[in-house]
Amino acid sequence: MSKVEDRLAELGLTVPEVAKPVAAYVPAVQDGRRIYTSGQLPMVSGSLAETGKVGQGEGLVSPERAAELAQICALNAIAAVKGLVGDLDKVTQVVKLVGFVASDPAFTGQPGVINGASELMGKAFGDAGIHARSAVGVAVLPLDAPVEVEIVVALADD
Amino acid sequence: MSKVEDRLAELGLTVPEVAKPVAAYVPAVQDGRRIYTSGQLPMVSGSLAETGKVGQGEGLVSPERAAELAQICALNAIAAVKGLVGDLDKVTQVVKLVGFVASDPAFTGQPGVINGASELMGKAFGDAGIHARSAVGVAVLPLDAPVEVEIVVALADD
Amino acid sequence: MSKVEDRLAELGLTVPEVAKPVAAYVPAVQDGRRIYTSGQLPMVSGSLAETGKVGQGEGLVSPERAAELAQICALNAIAAVKGLVGDLDKVTQVVKLVGFVASDPAFTGQPGVINGASELMGKAFGDAGIHARSAVGVAVLPLDAPVEVEIVVALADD
Repeated sequence: MSKVEDRLAELGLTVPEVAKPVAAYVPAVQDGRRIYTSGQLPMVSGSLAETGKVGQGEGLVSPERAAELAQICALNAIAAVKGLVGDLDKVTQVVKLVGFVASDPAFTGQPGVINGASELMGKAFGDAGIHARSAVGVAVLPLDAPVEVEIVVALADD
Repeated sequence: MSKVEDRLAELGLTVPEVAKPVAAYVPAVQDGRRIYTSGQLPMVSGSLAETGKVGQGEGLVSPERAAELAQICALNAIAAVKGLVGDLDKVTQVVKLVGFVASDPAFTGQPGVINGASELMGKAFGDAGIHARSAVGVAVLPLDAPVEVEIVVALADD
Repeated sequence: MSKVEDRLAELGLTVPEVAKPVAAYVPAVQDGRRIYTSGQLPMVSGSLAETGKVGQGEGLVSPERAAELAQICALNAIAAVKGLVGDLDKVTQVVKLVGFVASDPAFTGQPGVINGASELMGKAFGDAGIHARSAVGVAVLPLDAPVEVEIVVALADD
Protein backbone atom coordinates (compact mmCIF):
# COMPACT_ATOMS: atom_id res chain seq x y z
CA MET A 1 0.00 0.00 0.00
CA SER A 2 1.26 3.49 -0.79
CA LYS A 3 2.40 5.91 1.93
CA VAL A 4 -0.41 8.17 0.77
CA GLU A 5 -2.94 5.49 1.60
CA ASP A 6 -1.19 4.80 4.91
CA ARG A 7 -1.67 8.43 5.88
CA LEU A 8 -5.31 8.35 4.83
CA ALA A 9 -5.82 5.14 6.81
CA GLU A 10 -4.56 6.94 9.92
CA LEU A 11 -7.42 9.40 9.34
CA GLY A 12 -9.85 6.49 9.04
CA LEU A 13 -10.18 7.03 5.28
CA THR A 14 -10.00 4.47 2.50
CA VAL A 15 -9.51 5.29 -1.16
CA PRO A 16 -12.67 3.94 -2.79
CA GLU A 17 -12.90 1.94 -5.99
CA VAL A 18 -13.66 4.06 -9.04
CA ALA A 19 -16.74 3.06 -10.97
CA LYS A 20 -16.04 3.90 -14.61
CA PRO A 21 -18.98 5.96 -15.86
CA VAL A 22 -20.80 4.46 -18.83
CA ALA A 23 -20.32 7.63 -20.76
CA ALA A 24 -18.25 9.56 -23.23
CA TYR A 25 -15.80 10.51 -20.52
CA VAL A 26 -13.67 8.90 -17.82
CA PRO A 27 -12.78 9.71 -14.18
CA ALA A 28 -9.27 10.84 -15.11
CA VAL A 29 -6.92 11.16 -18.09
CA GLN A 30 -3.13 10.97 -18.11
CA ASP A 31 -1.28 13.24 -20.52
CA GLY A 32 2.46 12.85 -20.29
CA ARG A 33 3.33 13.13 -16.62
CA ARG A 34 0.16 14.99 -15.69
CA ILE A 35 -3.23 13.65 -14.68
CA TYR A 36 -6.45 15.64 -15.00
CA THR A 37 -9.46 14.33 -13.08
CA SER A 38 -13.09 14.84 -13.91
CA GLY A 39 -15.13 16.94 -11.52
CA GLN A 40 -15.81 14.71 -8.51
CA LEU A 41 -19.07 14.74 -6.59
CA PRO A 42 -19.45 13.63 -2.94
CA MET A 43 -20.46 10.10 -3.93
CA VAL A 44 -20.23 7.33 -1.33
CA SER A 45 -20.80 3.78 -2.59
CA GLY A 46 -22.47 5.11 -5.72
CA SER A 47 -24.86 7.61 -4.14
CA LEU A 48 -24.57 11.28 -3.28
CA ALA A 49 -23.86 11.70 0.44
CA GLU A 50 -26.11 14.76 0.46
CA THR A 51 -27.89 17.19 -1.87
CA GLY A 52 -28.78 20.87 -1.72
CA LYS A 53 -27.30 24.35 -1.67
CA VAL A 54 -24.74 25.48 0.87
CA GLY A 55 -25.39 28.38 3.23
CA GLN A 56 -26.61 29.46 6.62
CA GLY A 57 -30.23 28.74 7.44
CA GLU A 58 -33.21 26.44 7.15
CA GLY A 59 -33.07 23.92 4.33
CA LEU A 60 -29.44 24.64 3.43
CA VAL A 61 -26.37 22.43 3.79
CA SER A 62 -24.24 23.98 6.56
CA PRO A 63 -20.70 25.14 5.71
CA GLU A 64 -19.28 22.61 8.20
CA ARG A 65 -21.13 19.73 6.54
CA ALA A 66 -20.16 21.06 3.13
CA ALA A 67 -16.47 20.97 4.13
CA GLU A 68 -16.91 17.27 4.99
CA LEU A 69 -18.50 16.73 1.59
CA ALA A 70 -15.58 18.53 -0.05
CA GLN A 71 -13.28 16.05 1.68
CA ILE A 72 -15.28 13.19 0.16
CA CYS A 73 -14.94 14.80 -3.28
CA ALA A 74 -11.20 15.06 -2.71
CA LEU A 75 -10.98 11.40 -1.71
CA ASN A 76 -12.84 10.48 -4.90
CA ALA A 77 -10.40 12.60 -6.89
CA ILE A 78 -7.51 10.71 -5.28
CA ALA A 79 -9.29 7.49 -6.22
CA ALA A 80 -9.57 8.65 -9.83
CA VAL A 81 -5.81 9.28 -9.88
CA LYS A 82 -5.12 5.89 -8.29
CA GLY A 83 -7.24 4.25 -10.99
CA LEU A 84 -4.64 5.39 -13.53
CA VAL A 85 -1.32 5.21 -11.67
CA GLY A 86 -1.96 2.42 -9.19
CA ASP A 87 0.73 3.62 -6.80
CA LEU A 88 -0.23 7.04 -5.38
CA ASP A 89 3.35 7.65 -4.21
CA LYS A 90 4.15 8.38 -7.88
CA VAL A 91 2.37 11.72 -7.46
CA THR A 92 5.05 14.39 -7.04
CA GLN A 93 2.75 17.40 -6.88
CA VAL A 94 -0.91 18.28 -6.60
CA VAL A 95 -0.73 21.17 -9.06
CA LYS A 96 -4.23 22.64 -9.06
CA LEU A 97 -7.53 22.09 -7.32
CA VAL A 98 -10.77 23.76 -8.38
CA GLY A 99 -13.76 23.62 -6.05
CA PHE A 100 -17.30 24.54 -7.04
CA VAL A 101 -19.79 25.15 -4.22
CA ALA A 102 -23.52 25.18 -5.02
CA SER A 103 -24.25 28.31 -3.04
CA ASP A 104 -27.16 30.16 -1.59
CA PRO A 105 -26.68 33.68 -3.07
CA ALA A 106 -25.99 35.09 0.41
CA PHE A 107 -23.24 32.56 1.18
CA THR A 108 -19.67 33.80 0.70
CA GLY A 109 -17.70 31.20 2.69
CA GLN A 110 -16.60 29.04 -0.28
CA PRO A 111 -12.93 29.05 0.83
CA GLY A 112 -13.81 27.44 4.16
CA VAL A 113 -15.81 24.75 2.39
CA ILE A 114 -13.08 23.94 -0.11
CA ASN A 115 -10.53 23.80 2.71
CA GLY A 116 -12.13 20.41 3.40
CA ALA A 117 -10.63 19.26 0.10
CA SER A 118 -7.40 21.26 0.26
CA GLU A 119 -6.49 20.05 3.73
CA LEU A 120 -7.00 16.43 2.75
CA MET A 121 -4.48 16.89 -0.06
CA GLY A 122 -1.93 18.15 2.46
CA LYS A 123 -2.64 15.27 4.84
CA ALA A 124 -2.46 12.66 2.09
CA PHE A 125 0.49 13.90 0.06
CA GLY A 126 2.44 16.01 2.56
CA ASP A 127 4.36 18.88 0.94
CA ALA A 128 3.46 17.50 -2.49
CA GLY A 129 -0.17 18.14 -1.62
CA ILE A 130 0.19 21.93 -1.35
CA HIS A 131 -1.51 23.26 -4.48
CA ALA A 132 -2.86 26.29 -6.31
CA ARG A 133 -6.61 26.47 -6.11
CA SER A 134 -9.76 28.32 -7.08
CA ALA A 135 -13.01 28.26 -5.11
CA VAL A 136 -16.19 29.58 -6.69
CA GLY A 137 -19.86 29.62 -5.79
CA VAL A 138 -22.18 28.35 -8.51
CA ALA A 139 -25.93 28.24 -8.94
CA VAL A 140 -26.39 24.48 -8.99
CA LEU A 141 -24.33 21.32 -9.51
CA PRO A 142 -25.06 17.97 -11.20
CA LEU A 143 -27.66 15.87 -9.36
CA ASP A 144 -28.05 18.78 -6.91
CA ALA A 145 -24.66 18.00 -5.33
CA PRO A 146 -23.50 20.68 -2.85
CA VAL A 147 -19.83 20.49 -3.89
CA GLU A 148 -17.69 19.43 -6.88
CA VAL A 149 -13.88 19.19 -6.91
CA GLU A 150 -11.39 18.57 -9.73
CA ILE A 151 -7.61 18.29 -9.53
CA VAL A 152 -4.54 18.26 -11.75
CA VAL A 153 -1.53 16.30 -10.43
CA ALA A 154 2.01 15.78 -11.68
CA LEU A 155 3.85 12.44 -11.66
CA ALA A 156 7.54 11.61 -11.34
CA ASP A 157 9.39 11.62 -14.63
CA ASP A 158 9.50 7.85 -14.49
CA MET B 1 -9.25 16.39 -45.15
CA SER B 2 -8.51 14.84 -41.76
CA LYS B 3 -10.15 11.60 -40.61
CA VAL B 4 -11.66 13.62 -37.80
CA GLU B 5 -13.44 15.81 -40.32
CA ASP B 6 -14.48 12.75 -42.34
CA ARG B 7 -16.19 11.34 -39.26
CA LEU B 8 -17.90 14.66 -38.57
CA ALA B 9 -19.02 14.87 -42.21
CA GLU B 10 -20.72 11.49 -41.79
CA LEU B 11 -22.73 13.13 -39.00
CA GLY B 12 -23.59 16.01 -41.31
CA LEU B 13 -21.26 18.36 -39.43
CA THR B 14 -18.66 20.73 -40.83
CA VAL B 15 -15.89 22.33 -38.81
CA PRO B 16 -16.61 26.06 -39.12
CA GLU B 17 -14.10 28.80 -39.82
CA VAL B 18 -12.86 30.52 -36.69
CA ALA B 19 -13.36 34.25 -36.59
CA LYS B 20 -10.46 35.66 -34.57
CA PRO B 21 -11.97 37.93 -31.92
CA VAL B 22 -10.78 41.53 -32.08
CA ALA B 23 -9.74 41.34 -28.48
CA ALA B 24 -6.98 40.71 -26.02
CA TYR B 25 -7.45 36.98 -26.36
CA VAL B 26 -7.59 34.31 -29.05
CA PRO B 27 -9.72 31.21 -29.69
CA ALA B 28 -6.91 28.84 -28.68
CA VAL B 29 -3.27 28.83 -27.57
CA GLN B 30 -0.66 26.13 -28.15
CA ASP B 31 1.86 25.55 -25.37
CA GLY B 32 4.29 22.79 -26.20
CA ARG B 33 2.24 19.85 -27.37
CA ARG B 34 -0.93 21.00 -25.65
CA ILE B 35 -3.69 23.29 -26.88
CA TYR B 36 -6.03 25.19 -24.57
CA THR B 37 -9.16 26.64 -26.15
CA SER B 38 -11.13 29.63 -25.00
CA GLY B 39 -14.63 28.97 -23.69
CA GLN B 40 -16.79 28.37 -26.75
CA LEU B 41 -20.36 29.57 -27.06
CA PRO B 42 -22.99 27.99 -29.37
CA MET B 43 -22.27 30.44 -32.18
CA VAL B 44 -23.43 29.60 -35.70
CA SER B 45 -22.21 31.91 -38.47
CA GLY B 46 -21.38 34.58 -35.94
CA SER B 47 -24.61 34.57 -33.94
CA LEU B 48 -25.74 32.67 -30.87
CA ALA B 49 -27.99 29.76 -31.90
CA GLU B 50 -30.12 30.42 -28.82
CA THR B 51 -30.16 32.35 -25.55
CA GLY B 52 -31.58 31.74 -22.10
CA LYS B 53 -31.32 29.52 -19.03
CA VAL B 54 -31.60 25.74 -19.18
CA GLY B 55 -34.27 23.87 -17.25
CA GLN B 56 -37.72 22.35 -17.34
CA GLY B 57 -40.62 24.72 -17.91
CA GLU B 58 -41.96 27.80 -19.62
CA GLY B 59 -39.38 30.23 -20.97
CA LEU B 60 -36.42 27.89 -20.37
CA VAL B 61 -34.18 26.14 -22.89
CA SER B 62 -34.98 22.42 -22.67
CA PRO B 63 -32.22 19.99 -21.67
CA GLU B 64 -32.53 18.25 -25.05
CA ARG B 65 -32.05 21.51 -26.94
CA ALA B 66 -29.22 22.46 -24.58
CA ALA B 67 -27.42 19.20 -25.42
CA GLU B 68 -27.62 20.17 -29.12
CA LEU B 69 -26.16 23.56 -28.22
CA ALA B 70 -23.37 21.85 -26.27
CA GLN B 71 -22.56 19.93 -29.44
CA ILE B 72 -22.29 23.22 -31.33
CA CYS B 73 -19.92 24.54 -28.64
CA ALA B 74 -17.84 21.38 -29.01
CA LEU B 75 -17.70 21.80 -32.78
CA ASN B 76 -16.50 25.36 -32.30
CA ALA B 77 -13.85 24.12 -29.87
CA ILE B 78 -12.67 21.65 -32.52
CA ALA B 79 -12.59 24.55 -34.99
CA ALA B 80 -10.43 26.55 -32.58
CA VAL B 81 -7.98 23.64 -32.37
CA LYS B 82 -7.97 23.26 -36.16
CA GLY B 83 -7.18 26.96 -36.49
CA LEU B 84 -3.85 26.24 -34.80
CA VAL B 85 -2.88 22.75 -35.99
CA GLY B 86 -4.51 22.61 -39.39
CA ASP B 87 -4.64 18.81 -39.43
CA LEU B 88 -6.96 17.57 -36.67
CA ASP B 89 -5.47 14.07 -36.90
CA LYS B 90 -2.48 15.45 -34.99
CA VAL B 91 -4.65 15.44 -31.87
CA THR B 92 -3.66 12.38 -29.82
CA GLN B 93 -5.91 13.00 -26.84
CA VAL B 94 -8.76 15.22 -25.73
CA VAL B 95 -7.46 15.65 -22.19
CA LYS B 96 -10.11 17.73 -20.46
CA LEU B 97 -13.49 19.26 -21.22
CA VAL B 98 -15.25 21.72 -18.95
CA GLY B 99 -18.89 22.53 -19.59
CA PHE B 100 -20.77 25.41 -18.00
CA VAL B 101 -24.57 25.32 -18.19
CA ALA B 102 -26.54 28.53 -17.47
CA SER B 103 -29.04 26.86 -15.20
CA ASP B 104 -32.41 27.51 -13.69
CA PRO B 105 -31.73 26.94 -9.96
CA ALA B 106 -33.99 23.87 -9.96
CA PHE B 107 -32.18 22.20 -12.89
CA THR B 108 -29.68 19.50 -11.95
CA GLY B 109 -29.23 17.69 -15.28
CA GLN B 110 -25.97 19.38 -16.33
CA PRO B 111 -24.27 16.03 -17.12
CA GLY B 112 -26.91 15.17 -19.71
CA VAL B 113 -26.49 18.56 -21.36
CA ILE B 114 -22.70 18.35 -21.51
CA ASN B 115 -22.96 14.82 -22.93
CA GLY B 116 -23.86 16.64 -26.15
CA ALA B 117 -20.28 17.93 -26.18
CA SER B 118 -18.59 14.84 -24.72
CA GLU B 119 -20.21 12.47 -27.20
CA LEU B 120 -19.14 14.58 -30.15
CA MET B 121 -15.54 14.30 -28.99
CA GLY B 122 -15.85 10.51 -29.00
CA LYS B 123 -17.47 10.51 -32.45
CA ALA B 124 -14.87 12.88 -33.89
CA PHE B 125 -11.67 11.57 -32.33
CA GLY B 126 -12.55 7.94 -31.47
CA ASP B 127 -10.66 6.62 -28.43
CA ALA B 128 -8.56 9.79 -28.39
CA GLY B 129 -11.77 11.71 -27.73
CA ILE B 130 -12.45 10.07 -24.35
CA HIS B 131 -11.64 12.78 -21.82
CA ALA B 132 -11.86 13.91 -18.19
CA ARG B 133 -14.57 16.46 -17.69
CA SER B 134 -16.38 18.74 -15.30
CA ALA B 135 -19.97 19.94 -15.70
CA VAL B 136 -21.25 22.78 -13.58
CA GLY B 137 -24.38 24.92 -13.47
CA VAL B 138 -23.78 28.65 -13.42
CA ALA B 139 -25.98 31.70 -12.97
CA VAL B 140 -25.52 33.24 -16.40
CA LEU B 141 -23.14 33.07 -19.35
CA PRO B 142 -21.78 35.70 -21.78
CA LEU B 143 -24.43 37.15 -24.10
CA ASP B 144 -27.00 35.01 -22.25
CA ALA B 145 -25.67 31.84 -23.89
CA PRO B 146 -27.18 28.64 -22.43
CA VAL B 147 -23.92 26.65 -22.63
CA GLU B 148 -20.14 27.24 -22.77
CA VAL B 149 -17.50 24.57 -23.39
CA GLU B 150 -13.68 24.67 -23.22
CA ILE B 151 -11.21 21.88 -23.96
CA VAL B 152 -7.55 20.98 -23.51
CA VAL B 153 -6.08 18.63 -26.13
CA ALA B 154 -2.69 16.96 -26.55
CA LEU B 155 -0.81 16.69 -29.83
CA ALA B 156 1.62 14.06 -31.13
CA ASP B 157 5.23 14.70 -30.11
CA ASP B 158 5.89 15.79 -33.69
CA MET C 1 13.33 45.28 -12.80
CA SER C 2 11.73 43.17 -15.52
CA LYS C 3 10.45 44.69 -18.78
CA VAL C 4 7.02 43.45 -17.75
CA GLU C 5 7.18 45.59 -14.63
CA ASP C 6 8.51 48.53 -16.63
CA ARG C 7 5.44 48.36 -18.86
CA LEU C 8 3.14 48.13 -15.84
CA ALA C 9 4.92 51.08 -14.24
CA GLU C 10 4.13 53.15 -17.35
CA LEU C 11 0.46 52.40 -16.61
CA GLY C 12 0.97 53.52 -13.02
CA LEU C 13 0.74 49.94 -11.76
CA THR C 14 3.02 48.13 -9.33
CA VAL C 15 3.15 44.38 -8.86
CA PRO C 16 2.17 43.91 -5.21
CA GLU C 17 3.84 41.63 -2.69
CA VAL C 18 2.12 38.29 -2.34
CA ALA C 19 0.98 37.42 1.15
CA LYS C 20 1.24 33.64 1.43
CA PRO C 21 -2.10 32.39 2.74
CA VAL C 22 -1.88 30.46 6.01
CA ALA C 23 -3.68 27.58 4.42
CA ALA C 24 -3.46 24.27 2.68
CA TYR C 25 -2.80 25.99 -0.62
CA VAL C 26 -0.48 28.58 -2.13
CA PRO C 27 -0.87 31.53 -4.53
CA ALA C 28 0.78 29.61 -7.40
CA VAL C 29 2.46 26.29 -8.19
CA GLN C 30 5.17 25.60 -10.77
CA ASP C 31 5.02 22.27 -12.58
CA GLY C 32 7.80 21.87 -15.10
CA ARG C 33 7.82 25.02 -17.18
CA ARG C 34 4.22 25.93 -16.40
CA ILE C 35 2.79 27.95 -13.53
CA TYR C 36 -0.81 27.65 -12.35
CA THR C 37 -2.10 30.43 -10.10
CA SER C 38 -4.84 30.20 -7.53
CA GLY C 39 -8.00 32.16 -8.23
CA GLN C 40 -7.18 35.78 -7.45
CA LEU C 41 -9.60 38.20 -5.85
CA PRO C 42 -9.45 42.02 -6.21
CA MET C 43 -7.45 42.42 -3.01
CA VAL C 44 -5.57 45.66 -2.41
CA SER C 45 -3.22 45.72 0.60
CA GLY C 46 -4.98 42.73 2.09
CA SER C 47 -8.59 43.88 1.71
CA LEU C 48 -11.17 43.44 -1.04
CA ALA C 49 -11.39 46.62 -3.13
CA GLU C 50 -15.14 46.10 -3.39
CA THR C 51 -17.87 43.52 -2.76
CA GLY C 52 -21.16 42.66 -4.42
CA LYS C 53 -22.71 41.32 -7.60
CA VAL C 54 -22.06 42.81 -11.03
CA GLY C 55 -24.87 44.20 -13.17
CA GLN C 56 -26.86 47.23 -14.18
CA GLY C 57 -28.87 48.94 -11.47
CA GLU C 58 -29.17 49.98 -7.86
CA GLY C 59 -26.94 48.16 -5.40
CA LEU C 60 -24.91 46.38 -8.09
CA VAL C 61 -21.26 46.81 -9.06
CA SER C 62 -21.23 48.46 -12.50
CA PRO C 63 -19.60 46.61 -15.41
CA GLU C 64 -17.08 49.45 -15.78
CA ARG C 65 -16.05 49.20 -12.13
CA ALA C 66 -15.97 45.40 -12.39
CA ALA C 67 -13.53 45.65 -15.31
CA GLU C 68 -11.24 47.71 -13.08
CA LEU C 69 -11.55 45.05 -10.39
CA ALA C 70 -10.71 42.36 -12.97
CA GLN C 71 -7.53 44.31 -13.72
CA ILE C 72 -6.64 44.21 -10.01
CA CYS C 73 -7.21 40.44 -10.00
CA ALA C 74 -4.92 40.15 -13.03
CA LEU C 75 -2.23 42.21 -11.32
CA ASN C 76 -2.47 39.91 -8.30
CA ALA C 77 -2.14 36.89 -10.60
CA ILE C 78 1.02 38.43 -12.08
CA ALA C 79 2.25 38.94 -8.51
CA ALA C 80 1.61 35.27 -7.74
CA VAL C 81 3.71 34.29 -10.78
CA LYS C 82 6.46 36.71 -9.78
CA GLY C 83 6.51 35.15 -6.33
CA LEU C 84 7.71 31.92 -7.95
CA VAL C 85 9.89 33.05 -10.87
CA GLY C 86 11.23 36.36 -9.60
CA ASP C 87 11.92 37.68 -13.09
CA LEU C 88 8.63 38.10 -14.98
CA ASP C 89 10.47 38.27 -18.31
CA LYS C 90 10.88 34.49 -18.03
CA VAL C 91 7.20 34.16 -18.93
CA THR C 92 7.02 33.17 -22.60
CA GLN C 93 3.25 32.82 -22.85
CA VAL C 94 0.11 33.51 -20.89
CA VAL C 95 -1.61 30.28 -21.88
CA LYS C 96 -5.05 30.49 -20.30
CA LEU C 97 -7.08 32.93 -18.25
CA VAL C 98 -10.37 32.05 -16.59
CA GLY C 99 -12.55 34.83 -15.22
CA PHE C 100 -15.50 34.31 -12.91
CA VAL C 101 -17.93 37.22 -12.52
CA ALA C 102 -20.39 37.20 -9.59
CA SER C 103 -23.37 38.18 -11.69
CA ASP C 104 -26.85 39.52 -11.26
CA PRO C 105 -28.93 36.93 -13.20
CA ALA C 106 -29.86 39.57 -15.80
CA PHE C 107 -26.24 40.55 -16.49
CA THR C 108 -24.67 39.02 -19.61
CA GLY C 109 -21.66 41.29 -20.15
CA GLN C 110 -19.04 39.02 -18.55
CA PRO C 111 -16.67 39.32 -21.56
CA GLY C 112 -16.46 43.09 -21.15
CA VAL C 113 -15.65 42.70 -17.46
CA ILE C 114 -12.95 40.11 -18.01
CA ASN C 115 -11.43 42.27 -20.75
CA GLY C 116 -10.10 44.30 -17.80
CA ALA C 117 -7.90 41.31 -16.99
CA SER C 118 -7.18 40.20 -20.55
CA GLU C 119 -6.07 43.62 -21.70
CA LEU C 120 -3.66 43.97 -18.79
CA MET C 121 -1.99 40.71 -19.85
CA GLY C 122 -1.45 42.16 -23.32
CA LYS C 123 -0.10 45.41 -21.93
CA ALA C 124 2.22 43.66 -19.49
CA PHE C 125 3.52 40.80 -21.62
CA GLY C 126 3.04 42.06 -25.18
CA ASP C 127 2.42 39.28 -27.70
CA ALA C 128 3.19 36.71 -24.99
CA GLY C 129 0.17 38.03 -23.12
CA ILE C 130 -2.37 37.00 -25.77
CA HIS C 131 -4.16 34.01 -24.25
CA ALA C 132 -7.08 31.61 -24.47
CA ARG C 133 -9.77 32.47 -21.99
CA SER C 134 -13.16 31.61 -20.53
CA ALA C 135 -15.52 34.09 -18.90
CA VAL C 136 -18.46 32.82 -16.88
CA GLY C 137 -21.07 34.34 -14.61
CA VAL C 138 -21.42 32.70 -11.23
CA ALA C 139 -23.84 33.07 -8.32
CA VAL C 140 -21.40 34.30 -5.71
CA LEU C 141 -17.64 34.41 -5.07
CA PRO C 142 -15.52 34.06 -1.92
CA LEU C 143 -15.94 36.96 0.56
CA ASP C 144 -18.59 38.38 -1.82
CA ALA C 145 -15.90 39.42 -4.32
CA PRO C 146 -17.34 40.64 -7.64
CA VAL C 147 -14.61 39.02 -9.78
CA GLU C 148 -12.06 36.18 -9.58
CA VAL C 149 -9.31 35.47 -12.12
CA GLU C 150 -6.87 32.57 -12.50
CA ILE C 151 -4.11 32.10 -15.09
CA VAL C 152 -1.78 29.46 -16.47
CA VAL C 153 1.54 30.71 -17.87
CA ALA C 154 4.45 29.03 -19.62
CA LEU C 155 8.12 29.74 -18.92
CA ALA C 156 11.19 29.58 -21.13
CA ASP C 157 12.81 26.14 -21.28
CA ASP C 158 15.60 27.47 -19.14
